[in-house]
Amino acid sequence: MESDFGIPRELSELQKKRAEYHPELPPCLQGTTVRVEFGDSTTCADPSSAHVISQAFPNTFGQPLAHFLRATAKVPDAQIITEHPPLRVGVVFCGRQSPGGHNVVWGLYNAIKLHNLDSVLLGFVGGTEGLFAQRTLEITEEVLATYKNQGGFDLLGRTVDQIRTTEQVKAALTSCQDLKLDGLVIIGGVTSNSDAAQLAETFAEAKCSTKVVGVPVTLNGDLKNQFVETNVGFDTVCRVNSQLISNVCIDALSAQKYYYFIRLMGRKASHVALECALQSHPNMLILGEEVALSKLTIFDITKHICDAVQARAEKDKYHGVVLIPEGLVESIPELYALLQEIHGLRNQGILTENISSHLSPWASALFEFLPPFIRKQLLLHPESDDSAQLSQIETEKLLAQLVETEMNRRMNEGLYKGKKFNAICHFFGYQARGSLPSKFDCDYAYVLGHICYHILAAGLNGYMATVTNLKHPVNKWRCGAAPPTAMMTVKRYWGGPGAIPIGKPAIHPAAVDLKGKVYELLRQKASSFLMDDLYRNPGPLQFEGPGADAKTYTLCVEDQDYMGRIKKLQEYLDKVKSIVKPGCSHDVLKAALSSMASVTEVLSVMSAPSFGNHQPL
Amino acid sequence: MESDFGIPRELSELQKKRAEYHPELPPCLQGTTVRVEFGDSTTCADPSSAHVISQAFPNTFGQPLAHFLRATAKVPDAQIITEHPPLRVGVVFCGRQSPGGHNVVWGLYNAIKLHNLDSVLLGFVGGTEGLFAQRTLEITEEVLATYKNQGGFDLLGRTVDQIRTTEQVKAALTSCQDLKLDGLVIIGGVTSNSDAAQLAETFAEAKCSTKVVGVPVTLNGDLKNQFVETNVGFDTVCRVNSQLISNVCIDALSAQKYYYFIRLMGRKASHVALECALQSHPNMLILGEEVALSKLTIFDITKHICDAVQARAEKDKYHGVVLIPEGLVESIPELYALLQEIHGLRNQGILTENISSHLSPWASALFEFLPPFIRKQLLLHPESDDSAQLSQIETEKLLAQLVETEMNRRMNEGLYKGKKFNAICHFFGYQARGSLPSKFDCDYAYVLGHICYHILAAGLNGYMATVTNLKHPVNKWRCGAAPPTAMMTVKRYWGGPGAIPIGKPAIHPAAVDLKGKVYELLRQKASSFLMDDLYRNPGPLQFEGPGADAKTYTLCVEDQDYMGRIKKLQEYLDKVKSIVKPGCSHDVLKAALSSMASVTEVLSVMSAPSFGNHQPL
Repeated sequence: MESDFGIPRELSELQKKRAEYHPELPPCLQGTTVRVEFGDSTTCADPSSAHVISQAFPNTFGQPLAHFLRATAKVPDAQIITEHPPLRVGVVFCGRQSPGGHNVVWGLYNAIKLHNLDSVLLGFVGGTEGLFAQRTLEITEEVLATYKNQGGFDLLGRTVDQIRTTEQVKAALTSCQDLKLDGLVIIGGVTSNSDAAQLAETFAEAKCSTKVVGVPVTLNGDLKNQFVETNVGFDTVCRVNSQLISNVCIDALSAQKYYYFIRLMGRKASHVALECALQSHPNMLILGEEVALSKLTIFDITKHICDAVQARAEKDKYHGVVLIPEGLVESIPELYALLQEIHGLRNQGILTENISSHLSPWASALFEFLPPFIRKQLLLHPESDDSAQLSQIETEKLLAQLVETEMNRRMNEGLYKGKKFNAICHFFGYQARGSLPSKFDCDYAYVLGHICYHILAAGLNGYMATVTNLKHPVNKWRCGAAPPTAMMTVKRYWGGPGAIPIGKPAIHPAAVDLKGKVYELLRQKASSFLMDDLYRNPGPLQFEGPGADAKTYTLCVEDQDYMGRIKKLQEYLDKVKSIVKPGCSHDVLKAALSSMASVTEVLSVMSAPSFGNHQPL
Repeated sequence: MESDFGIPRELSELQKKRAEYHPELPPCLQGTTVRVEFGDSTTCADPSSAHVISQAFPNTFGQPLAHFLRATAKVPDAQIITEHPPLRVGVVFCGRQSPGGHNVVWGLYNAIKLHNLDSVLLGFVGGTEGLFAQRTLEITEEVLATYKNQGGFDLLGRTVDQIRTTEQVKAALTSCQDLKLDGLVIIGGVTSNSDAAQLAETFAEAKCSTKVVGVPVTLNGDLKNQFVETNVGFDTVCRVNSQLISNVCIDALSAQKYYYFIRLMGRKASHVALECALQSHPNMLILGEEVALSKLTIFDITKHICDAVQARAEKDKYHGVVLIPEGLVESIPELYALLQEIHGLRNQGILTENISSHLSPWASALFEFLPPFIRKQLLLHPESDDSAQLSQIETEKLLAQLVETEMNRRMNEGLYKGKKFNAICHFFGYQARGSLPSKFDCDYAYVLGHICYHILAAGLNGYMATVTNLKHPVNKWRCGAAPPTAMMTVKRYWGGPGAIPIGKPAIHPAAVDLKGKVYELLRQKASSFLMDDLYRNPGPLQFEGPGADAKTYTLCVEDQDYMGRIKKLQEYLDKVKSIVKPGCSHDVLKAALSSMASVTEVLSVMSAPSFGNHQPL
């Protein structure tokens, strides 16, 4: 066993204080008795994918939602779990470290022990590699002592971050059987939860008695859908990054001579960058989703930034801060096409050093135009999910260089008469994801850990722990479980003329919704952010006093509570029934029939597989 | 006037709360009456420089120390300042932004208005350029409202950061005369305070009635000497950087696959890096001062890191964190020599693009060996103080690349059998210096601002505001003023055979004292830091609760209180006098004479100009 995992750590004064913090539980999870109510069976957001997903997941697609309620809740169909036999549960970190992950383990441990002291929680040491190799560490109060409310995944570590190949899945199955596990909890993001869903299906097929549960833990905040409002770690990471961005904004304003180009970790989607922009008010945010929608080329973006620099120079401003999500590079059409071509050549077995000579003339011209550092980075081996190594591609440097070149050209041609453009580049990511988790992330993760236990106690397989109504205080949170298969979509690939192979169903990262309220909030302020330097400093993450209980804009602005709205619909349907009882007038019945015919027709059309290409919510 | 300065800002919840915080004053500054006690006249730490400095500063060298005491203090020689005519004072930010700078302005404003409501405080807008161009903003309660306890220098801005050329000094003189200033307060670090001292001398020579006062504000923490214990901003910057470093440490430990090379802002000296290492316990710190002392080449350092990587690999550890002060590049002998040669060629008027072809064969060989990005950075124009642009030279990338190459070589030759070495590089600086200042920096800066007023009220010219005994609570702080000329040293340059021109006296950055207690603390722990991953997370800067009142190790560990010890000496001398009174025995007198003869001889030898090359304390 590696000596570094699970050993007690020396804590700073603040860490000690944080270790003493005990998250609150929502009312439904307080006490030892919890009711489970099952909702309707689930489908997926894109009707055209339902068939494909149901074929791939015959055992786990269409399972009903589960809601956890107080023992005293007056819900006729809810069942109380009365039996609490000892459980053996395994838990594994299977994704990038995200602040709060440790609290999932802690919450799970507490819930397990609360219901039966003979239950055992085994942590897999060294992430998925530990799972395959059956390297475990029994979680105890002593082991947890210095990891409660602490950042990182260093209690257990993480490694390959995937359970996908036949060998990997087989190894996981063997481990669960050998260790006689009743449950396996997988902590991770989009990819890990897709893997968890696959594992649940495989286990069900193989009649393995281990139930698989996923937990949405990813700083990217891109595991968002009808059932999942936000992810553990997103709040902390956005707050740490916003602190740094706003420090840089104040720095820019003090010296008035630099443009800072800041790239932010967050994978393909731009949630982190959008939230940070709303918290710190930088001058510009180049949103990947906007670029993709408008099909802006790298030259369009450069021109856009240069025009802004020039407009600011006319107001005698020679400083600014530009945010760039790391996924931007894949949103720029020509760079995406180039990356795809490189990826295709690599799949044909062409060595990295020979790839550039095999590119098509068009791609080759673009490749040669790019500065050497970017060329090298584009050629890096792709990630386990086949996407480019976004964290290693310095898009911020590329843009800063292109802007500088263009500004110099404008200056030489007399089109720009201001001072010389100077840029400084940053990449913020690694320095945020090991942070002490915010109170919100501590609470959210701890509650999710508890829910995992109740999912297993209810004997459910192939579920993800969920908490909704998160923008409200903990005592209003709603706890439940949703099958990840209901969050899946199917990507269709256009491989060549006529060929439209269908991808494997998976949970895909949710893009920033350009029709959503969060984006709308940014759009309203974008032009004043650009010109007026309304920099705002949320300050360092606080654990006491003002700001300690703040939540992200992303969470607070959106009308989430999908579950609540589903319940509201049920109420309407019940009301129609109660009004249109036998004995009601002809007119009332006629009106009801006519209205409902129209409603059902509209909904049928909208839900038909042929209706548009739905984006996951 | 630029529209960006002094305008009210939108504050976050935390910023608002911080704006309400009111720093405490030490007892001596409370109330409206303050006594001034003058100590002995000062000299400088290096006796061999005294003559040169006294010649360059005939009006301001040798001035006595001033101590500010309570009105009720029982000190016979102290004088009470009773007259408080209205003063016109100017204040200018003249150095890099450092958290807490705004509070100097606030403290000064409050002290000025407390003693005479007709006094006026003018802020120079746009730093030194504003000073030369007489662009001012009258500081009022309204102007200050959103800048109290806030980071950055954006209330007034900063620009050229020097007042040195004849034209600049003349412009400053004209401004002070035109604006009828009684005092000019210069906020900055080592270079700015040297400039302030020069300005004071010039003003005295020119019979200009404006008194010049300096304030030690620099995140580098390198304005350290007998009189100055620490600088405004150092505490905050070390704490923000330590937060990020420890986040990265936890990240490294969670994933166990990367070595992080982190370069820290802090100019030539390594104080910031040393303090951050003590706060966050990374695996390695390559201290510039150690490298310079041991004359380690870039290859020695590379080998040193590679050996550490290999030793860790033998314990199955493939991660780690290495701190690198930005000044390291100038501490490595061959890189320093190369930089000097480049600098010399530039001074001969050789264009940047031609410099490489004019290098000596030795320097040229080294230059060609270096990766292109470093070559380009070494050729950047030097800073205003003639040193290399340390913030732009990516030494961390150079080292990471050299280590990778060497580890690959060892692997290929079978000397290293571990996993492939992977590095990720960071530069932390800009993201820290705009931070909300810590409580310590808020208090220290505010008190210094008050002291500036009392220096001016006492009619002193050519002084720096000082607070000592800082490691104790504010009510134990001692306030005073010391002439910057007493902090100066003279550098001797060896320009060629026989030629030893003497540099201008100046306050030079204090290097980390390799015989000091702070360094000793690191040395004791260095090997366990290296191997045992004792990462410690001080967490984000807190304003309430645990950690909010923490101070730097650098401040707390050292026996500072030089002023206290000077007083202690006086007590010994008085005691000898009181014991050896006329009428004492022959033996007592004999013993006293013999002892004192020996003491005076030792001290005379040690204080002779020929005795060693003294480092400033």
